[in-house]
Amino acid sequence: MTRLIRGGRVVTATDAFDADVLIDGETIVAVGTGLSGDEEIDASGCLVLPGLVDNHTHLSMPFGGTWSCDDYTTGTAAAAAGGTTSIVDFCIQYVGGSLKDALAEWHGRADGAAHIDYGFHCAITDARPEVVAEMEQCVADGVTSFKVFMAYKGALMVDDEQFIAVLEQTGKTGGLVMVHCENGDAVVRYQKEALEAGDTDPKFHASTRPPEVEGEATSRAIRLAEWTGRPLFVVHVTCEEAVKEIQAARDRGLPIFGETCIQYLYLTVDDLDRPGFEGAKYVCSPPLREAYNQHVLYQALRQGALQGISTDHCPFNFKEQKELGLGDFTKIPNGLPAIEHRLTLLYDRSVRGGHMDIVDVVRHGSWGPARIFGLDKKGAIAPGFDADIVVFDPEVKHTISAETHVMNVDYDPFEGWEVQGKPRFTLSRGETVYADGKIISEPGRGRFLKRSLFEPAMG
Amino acid sequence: MTRLIRGGRVVTATDAFDADVLIDGETIVAVGTGLSGDEEIDASGCLVLPGLVDNHTHLSMPFGGTWSCDDYTTGTAAAAAGGTTSIVDFCIQYVGGSLKDALAEWHGRADGAAHIDYGFHCAITDARPEVVAEMEQCVADGVTSFKVFMAYKGALMVDDEQFIAVLEQTGKTGGLVMVHCENGDAVVRYQKEALEAGDTDPKFHASTRPPEVEGEATSRAIRLAEWTGRPLFVVHVTCEEAVKEIQAARDRGLPIFGETCIQYLYLTVDDLDRPGFEGAKYVCSPPLREAYNQHVLYQALRQGALQGISTDHCPFNFKEQKELGLGDFTKIPNGLPAIEHRLTLLYDRSVRGGHMDIVDVVRHGSWGPARIFGLDKKGAIAPGFDADIVVFDPEVKHTISAETHVMNVDYDPFEGWEVQGKPRFTLSRGETVYADGKIISEPGRGRFLKRSLFEPAMG
Amino acid sequence: MTRLIRGGRVVTATDAFDADVLIDGETIVAVGTGLSGDEEIDASGCLVLPGLVDNHTHLSMPFGGTWSCDDYTTGTAAAAAGGTTSIVDFCIQYVGGSLKDALAEWHGRADGAAHIDYGFHCAITDARPEVVAEMEQCVADGVTSFKVFMAYKGALMVDDEQFIAVLEQTGKTGGLVMVHCENGDAVVRYQKEALEAGDTDPKFHASTRPPEVEGEATSRAIRLAEWTGRPLFVVHVTCEEAVKEIQAARDRGLPIFGETCIQYLYLTVDDLDRPGFEGAKYVCSPPLREAYNQHVLYQALRQGALQGISTDHCPFNFKEQKELGLGDFTKIPNGLPAIEHRLTLLYDRSVRGGHMDIVDVVRHGSWGPARIFGLDKKGAIAPGFDADIVVFDPEVKHTISAETHVMNVDYDPFEGWEVQGKPRFTLSRGETVYADGKIISEPGRGRFLKRSLFEPAMG
Amino acid sequence: MTRLIRGGRVVTATDAFDADVLIDGETIVAVGTGLSGDEEIDASGCLVLPGLVDNHTHLSMPFGGTWSCDDYTTGTAAAAAGGTTSIVDFCIQYVGGSLKDALAEWHGRADGAAHIDYGFHCAITDARPEVVAEMEQCVADGVTSFKVFMAYKGALMVDDEQFIAVLEQTGKTGGLVMVHCENGDAVVRYQKEALEAGDTDPKFHASTRPPEVEGEATSRAIRLAEWTGRPLFVVHVTCEEAVKEIQAARDRGLPIFGETCIQYLYLTVDDLDRPGFEGAKYVCSPPLREAYNQHVLYQALRQGALQGISTDHCPFNFKEQKELGLGDFTKIPNGLPAIEHRLTLLYDRSVRGGHMDIVDVVRHGSWGPARIFGLDKKGAIAPGFDADIVVFDPEVKHTISAETHVMNVDYDPFEGWEVQGKPRFTLSRGETVYADGKIISEPGRGRFLKRSLFEPAMG
Repeated sequence: MTRLIRGGRVVTATDAFDADVLIDGETIVAVGTGLSGDEEIDASGCLVLPGLVDNHTHLSMPFGGTWSCDDYTTGTAAAAAGGTTSIVDFCIQYVGGSLKDALAEWHGRADGAAHIDYGFHCAITDARPEVVAEMEQCVADGVTSFKVFMAYKGALMVDDEQFIAVLEQTGKTGGLVMVHCENGDAVVRYQKEALEAGDTDPKFHASTRPPEVEGEATSRAIRLAEWTGRPLFVVHVTCEEAVKEIQAARDRGLPIFGETCIQYLYLTVDDLDRPGFEGAKYVCSPPLREAYNQHVLYQALRQGALQGISTDHCPFNFKEQKELGLGDFTKIPNGLPAIEHRLTLLYDRSVRGGHMDIVDVVRHGSWGPARIFGLDKKGAIAPGFDADIVVFDPEVKHTISAETHVMNVDYDPFEGWEVQGKPRFTLSRGETVYADGKIISEPGRGRFLKRSLFEPAMG
Repeated sequence: MTRLIRGGRVVTATDAFDADVLIDGETIVAVGTGLSGDEEIDASGCLVLPGLVDNHTHLSMPFGGTWSCDDYTTGTAAAAAGGTTSIVDFCIQYVGGSLKDALAEWHGRADGAAHIDYGFHCAITDARPEVVAEMEQCVADGVTSFKVFMAYKGALMVDDEQFIAVLEQTGKTGGLVMVHCENGDAVVRYQKEALEAGDTDPKFHASTRPPEVEGEATSRAIRLAEWTGRPLFVVHVTCEEAVKEIQAARDRGLPIFGETCIQYLYLTVDDLDRPGFEGAKYVCSPPLREAYNQHVLYQALRQGALQGISTDHCPFNFKEQKELGLGDFTKIPNGLPAIEHRLTLLYDRSVRGGHMDIVDVVRHGSWGPARIFGLDKKGAIAPGFDADIVVFDPEVKHTISAETHVMNVDYDPFEGWEVQGKPRFTLSRGETVYADGKIISEPGRGRFLKRSLFEPAMG
Repeated sequence: MTRLIRGGRVVTATDAFDADVLIDGETIVAVGTGLSGDEEIDASGCLVLPGLVDNHTHLSMPFGGTWSCDDYTTGTAAAAAGGTTSIVDFCIQYVGGSLKDALAEWHGRADGAAHIDYGFHCAITDARPEVVAEMEQCVADGVTSFKVFMAYKGALMVDDEQFIAVLEQTGKTGGLVMVHCENGDAVVRYQKEALEAGDTDPKFHASTRPPEVEGEATSRAIRLAEWTGRPLFVVHVTCEEAVKEIQAARDRGLPIFGETCIQYLYLTVDDLDRPGFEGAKYVCSPPLREAYNQHVLYQALRQGALQGISTDHCPFNFKEQKELGLGDFTKIPNGLPAIEHRLTLLYDRSVRGGHMDIVDVVRHGSWGPARIFGLDKKGAIAPGFDADIVVFDPEVKHTISAETHVMNVDYDPFEGWEVQGKPRFTLSRGETVYADGKIISEPGRGRFLKRSLFEPAMG
Repeated sequence: MTRLIRGGRVVTATDAFDADVLIDGETIVAVGTGLSGDEEIDASGCLVLPGLVDNHTHLSMPFGGTWSCDDYTTGTAAAAAGGTTSIVDFCIQYVGGSLKDALAEWHGRADGAAHIDYGFHCAITDARPEVVAEMEQCVADGVTSFKVFMAYKGALMVDDEQFIAVLEQTGKTGGLVMVHCENGDAVVRYQKEALEAGDTDPKFHASTRPPEVEGEATSRAIRLAEWTGRPLFVVHVTCEEAVKEIQAARDRGLPIFGETCIQYLYLTVDDLDRPGFEGAKYVCSPPLREAYNQHVLYQALRQGALQGISTDHCPFNFKEQKELGLGDFTKIPNGLPAIEHRLTLLYDRSVRGGHMDIVDVVRHGSWGPARIFGLDKKGAIAPGFDADIVVFDPEVKHTISAETHVMNVDYDPFEGWEVQGKPRFTLSRGETVYADGKIISEPGRGRFLKRSLFEPAMG
C-alpha cells in the first residue's frame, strides 16, 4: 500500500520546497508534485520534515540510587509525539561488569517496548583490558559509538589512562568515542567546599560545576583524541569555554564534533535559583549557564563547530526523585525531561526567533546526527530512505505543561511556555505513530538499529 | 512535455540515492522511483547532480591591454561541457566610469550570446560617492554582490577608505561584498625589486606575491567588514595564511565566507617554474602555492571555513597573450582557463583521491554558491527547482588536452592529465545543452539571472 | 670635583637599596656606603633614580599649520623639572624634502638651547629612493631610529610600499623602525562621516579613531616587519586591540617592542567629553581610551609585551592653538603636554596605586628606553655611567597646575590633581639642573646624543 | 675586615661595567672605582657576577628505591665550584607522612653539611586536609614554595582535586605553587604499551613522555591556578607545547612563571639513543627533546615567558643506579648531574653562541630566581646584598669530564665538551668557598635561608 503526504512544504537539511511525499510500505519512493497514493495524509499548511533523531537519551537509566522515570515505552511515545523517530540511548556498563551484560540488559528493556526505532551507544565506565576487548563485538553488533565520562568521580568517571585505552581501541575496531567533559576532580572539590560552607541549595549545583571545568575537560579530551589520531564527539556542549576548544581543534584540522541540547539554548543558570526547591527541576550536568552562552552556541551551530542538537533526556520526578537532594544538592538526580519538546521549541524559539532557518533544524536535529551516528536510512526525505516523517503544523499555538505532556514525569521544565508549532502526524517507517495529539501505535513496533561506522575523511 | 532522467544515482548537497528525476518544461517536478515521462534520458551508471554554479568567471575580461579569450558564447559552452549550468561573471567598472555603463557593457556582451544562465557581480574600482550611490540600483537590478580588489595597485585596487565606503553602502542597500585579498603595495614593491634584480621569469610572479601578503590582506578585509557589521566573501583563497584569518573570524562569530578554486587544489607553485616560458601558463593571482596548502584548503572546506570551489576562469592564449610577459613577468596577463574541468577534476582528484565525498562536490560546487549568491532556483535536485542537471558518468576515462577542450584558448593547464569521469548530458532549465561530447544548444538561450540578497543570520 | 649624593635609597631597574652615589665630574664612580665626596647632596628620605629617558617628544613640532609650543629650552627645562634627563625628539622630514635638511633644521633648533641631553629619531614621510638612501648617513650620525606614520593621510602617512622600503633599508644600515599605528584610511573616512553628520565636537576625535583601527595597523606593521626580518618599535600603544597583536608577535619569537604613554594610563576617553570645548585639551592621537585598557597596559608592561612608558609630549595652547578646531574637531592640533609629570604620576598613581614597583618605573621610564634607543651611558646608577640622576622625594604633596608647571603651555591636562612625590634635585652629567623647584642651569648645556644601534638577539 | 674584588667587569641583571666591589664581612658595601679594602681579590680580565641561584636541585633525593648520589656536602661543593652560591632544594613529603617530618628529615641532612646557603621547597605528594593545613607553618618557617607533581602516577602524583587544595591554601597563607607538568596517566599508558611491545631501551623513556603530555599538563595546571586566582611556577619547561601554554596565560594577564634547565638547552632526545645503555645517562623527566625546542626556549627566555634557568640536578651513578633500568627503561632513575656546569655552559654555549647576553645569564640564573623565590639578599651586586659573588674567567679553556668534576657521580652528561670560561673564585657571604679549582671552605658553613613570600602584582 502506498501513502501520499500531500500539500506540505518539504524541508531537507539544505532546502525547503512545496512537494508531496510518496511512501510505499516503510520507504519513501518519491518526492514531487502530481503524485498519487492509495491513501493520503493531509499536510496542507504544514512542514514535512524527516523525523528527528535524538542521539542522546537516557531511558530507564540508573543514577544515584534511582532510575530515570521514562522507560522505553513512555519515552519513545513522548519522542514520537514530539516529532522524533529515532533515538540512540546510552547503555551503561556497571563498574566491574561487562559490555555484553550491559547491552543484554538494555536490549531487555527496549526490545518489545519501543514505539520508534532505537540504537545504543555503550558507555564504558571501567575500561579494563578485557572490557576494551569487547568493543570489537559491540561494533559488529551495530553499537558503533562509545562514551566515557570525565566527571562523576567515584562512579562513572574514567581516568585519562582508561580514556586513551578506549580511543586507541577504536583505532583498531572503528567506532566513535563520545565524551562527557567536566573535570570531575574539580567538581568533587568544589562540592565538598560548598557543603562544608552550608551551601546546599540547588543553585550550588551550577556554581560547583563552572564553565571552566567543562572547558578544561573539553581541551583535555580533544588532546587525547588528537594523540590517538581518532575522531571525537563532545556531548552536551554548554558554554563558550568548551566551544572555543572545539573551534581551535577544528581549525587545526582535527575531526572533532559536538552537539548541544535544547535546554542550553532556552534555559539559564537563573532557573536553578527558583524559589524553594524548584531549582532542582533544572539540575542537569553540565549545568545550565549564563544566557550569553546561548548566543555562542547559536554561532557554533551556524559556523559548523557543532553539528547536532539533542535533548539528553533524563527525567526524574520532582516528588521522591529530585527530592532526594533536599538539603544536599549533590544528591539531586541529574537530568531533565526534554525528549518531547525539541522540534516545537526549535521551531518556536530558534527559527521564529531568527537564530536559524528551518533547514538548520533538520540539519542539526535529524540529518547531522543520522550521518554521524551511522543511521543510513534516516535523516532525509528522499527516495529509498525510511519513511520517518513529521508533518509539522507551524501555526498551532499551545502551552507546554506536565498535565498534558506525554512524558512520564511529574513536572515540565518548560511549564507554561506558550509556543507555536506542533507535530500533526509522526510516521515511523511509513506507519503513523502519532496523530492529532495521540500516540496510536503499539509499543514494540520500534526496531533496534544496527548502526554503521562513521569515519570522517581526514586527509 | 516531460522528460525523465532514468536510472541514475541522484546526488544532493547532503545525500546520494538511486532515483529518477522528472522534468516538466524548465522545472524539476519529481524525484523518485516508478515515475514516467514523455521522453527519457538514460542515466544508468551515472551520477545525477544539480548543475554546477561557477560564481567566479571572467569572460571577455579586459586585463593589461588585452582581453580574456573566452567570450560569453565560447565560455558558456565550455562551462556546459564541464557540467556547469550557471555562472556569475565579473562586470568591471572602469576607473572614472559608472557602474551603470559597466553593466550595460557586460549585458551587451552576454545577452544573446550565452548557452547557460548567467549573473553579474559588479567590481568597483573607483568608489567615488556617486558610484557608491549606484549600488542601490544594481541591487534592484539583481546584481547583488560587489567586488573590490586589494591588489593591482594603480589599476583595480581600492584603498581602505573606498573599501569601507562600499561595505557601508551594503548596510543600507543589502548586497554581499567580495574581495580579492593581496596587499597590493607589497606586491608592487616586490615586483620592482625583482625586476631591478633581473628576475624576470614567470616564477617570480609567485615569489613577489607570497602567501603572507594574501594573509595580511585577508586579515585587513575581515577587520573592515567587522567594523562595518557586514558579511564578506573572500574570493580565491589559496593558502594557510588566509585560511587562518577566516577561521579566526568565524570562530568569533563573524559572517565571513570564502571559496577556493580548483587550480589551488591541483596545481602548485612548481608549475610556474616549468622550463622556458611554460610557467606563464600558470600565472594567476594569487599565485599557485606550495603543495601543503592543498591539505589546508581541503580541511577548510571540510570544517566549513570555506563554502565554495569555483574556477576564476580567465583564459589568455599562450601565444601573443601570455607572451606579452616575455622578459617581464609583471606583463603576463593573470589568469588560467579552468571553467570546463571543475566537475571532472573534483570527481577524479578530490573524490576518488579521498579528500571529499561526492555530496561535498555538490555542496561546494553548486548548492553553496547558489545560496550565497542568491540563485534561488539553482543548486538542488528537488521539485520546483530549475532543471539544471548534469548526468555524470563516473567511469569514463579520458585525457585533458587543448586539442579537445571546448574552451577557446590555445593551451590547457591540465594538458595530458588522465582523468576518470565526465558529463554525459548537461541540462539547463530542462533543455539538453550538452550531450555525448558536443554542445547542442544555440547561443543566446542562456538568461540573465536576477539574484536575490543573501543576508546570513547573525544573532 | 666629586659630589656625593648621600642618604638616599638607590633604585635600579631591578632592585632598591640604601646607598650613596659618588660622582666625579660628569660620571658616576661609586655606589655604596662609607663614601665621601667634595660636595654632598642630601638625599635623605629620597629615592635616587637614574634620570628618566623620554624617547617620545615633539618640541617645536610643526602640525596642522601651527607649532607645538614648547621649544628646546622650555621643553627640556620642564623635562628636567620632572626628572627626565634625556629626550629623543622626533625630527620630521617634510614631504619633498630630504632627511639631511630636516636634521639640520632640528639641530638648529636644539643646539645651544637645551638644558639636558637630546637625540633625534628621524620621521620619514616621503620614502623616495633617494630619501631611503640617506638613512645610512643618519645612522652614521647617531640618528639610529626612524619613524613612519600609518595615519595622517595626505600629510605624514606613508603607504605600505614605502614602509617596506624603510624597513628593508634598516636591514642594510641597521636602525630601529618606529611606527605610529592607526589605519589612516579608516580615520579619514570616519572623520568625513562625522563632519557630514554634524558631529564636530572634540569627543568625535575619539570615535573616529576607534581602537580597532589601531589594532589593525599594529597587526599590519608587525607583518611588514616580519616579512622584512626586522625589529620594530610600536609607539604609543593605547589599547587591548594593539597589545594583543604585539603579544602574538612576541609569542612567535619576533623582536617587536612597544611603549605606552602616561596619558593612556591615567586619562580616558571621557576626558574628551568634558563640557564646552574643554575636551580639546585631551585631543591626541591615538585618542584616549575606555578605562579598562589601562589594566591591559599595566599587564602588558608587567608581562614584558611593552618595554617603555614615554610621554609623546606635544603641547599646544588651548587659546589660539587648540581653538583652531572650534567647530571642526579635525582641526584641533593633536597632542598633550606631559613631559614634566611622568615620574610624579608614575610614582603617585602607578606605584602607590599598586600597579607596579618603583624598580619598574626605572625599567620602563629610563633603563629600557635607554637600551632600546642606544643611549649607552644612560639609564643606570652604576660606575661609569653618566651622572644623570633624580633625587626624588616620595613624601612631598603638591597639586599639578598650569599656573605652576614649567611647561610653556596655558593649560595642564592634569590640572588640580593632588599628587605625592616630586624631584628634589635633577642632575645631568653631574650638574644640578633643577633643585628645590627651580631650573638652575643655562640653556645650551645639553648635548646631542649620538646613539648606538640596537640589534636584539633573534637566534 | 674588608675585601676588594679589583679589576673586573661587574655584571648585573641589566648592565655590565668596569668596577671594583668592596665587601665588609658578609656584605657588599660599595661598587665603584677608587675603592680600597684590607685584602684584594684579583678579578682582572674577569666577569664579576652575583653568585648564581639554583632553585631546582635534588640532593640525597629518594627515587625509585635509590638515592640521588650527591649529598648536601658534595652537591653544594659542586655548586660552588660552578659559581652557584644558593640552592633551593626539594624536600619531599612521603605519602602518608607529614610536611613537618619531611622538613625535619631534610634539615637533618643539610644542616651542618652545606658549603653554601640553601632553602627548601616542600613537595606535597599526599594533600590530605591535615597536610594542607601544615602549609601555614611551612611559610612561617621560611619554606614559601610548594611543589606538586602531575606525573609519577602511583608515587608522587597528585590528582587535580589535591592540586586545587594546595593552590587554594596558598591563597590563605601565601606561598608559590610549583608544578611538574606531565600527564601521568598518559605516561603510564604509554609505558605499559612500550614494555608490552618489547621496547625497553632508554630511548623509549622519551617516546613514552612526548611533548604533548607536557603541554596538556601545563595547560591544565595553568587553568587550575587561574580558577584559584593564584600565581604558579612551572618547573623544567622543555618544549614548544608547554611554552605556548605559558605564553597564552601570560598574554591574558595571569601571573604564570616558568623556568627551563640547562640540559634542555644543550642536549637533545638523540642523546637517549646513544649506543648500548649509554642513553640511560640522559634519562630525566620531562625527557630531552628535539633540537628545535631549544630555539623556542631561547625565545621564551628573551620574550619574558620564562624567567629562570636552573639545573634540576638529580644525579645517579651509571653503575648500579642507572643500571637498575637495564631491560626496563621505566626503572632507570630519573635525573642528570648538572649543578656544577650551569654558568660555564651558559657562558660558553648561550652567550658565546649568540643566544643571550651575559646580563641575561645573571637575570635568569641569579636575580630572577632570587626574587621569585624570596631570597632578598641574593642575586645582585649592590650595597647591602650578601657578598655572594663569582669571579668568572671568560677566557680559560677546559674540558668537562667526570674525572675532574666535583660532583659525586661516576659520569658526566657533558663528558668531553670543550668549553671556555670558568669560575676563578666563588664567594659566599664574603668568604671564598672556591678558588683556583678547589673547594676551600668547610662543610656546614652554609646556612638555611628563610625565604620571603613572592606576591606578584596582579592589578
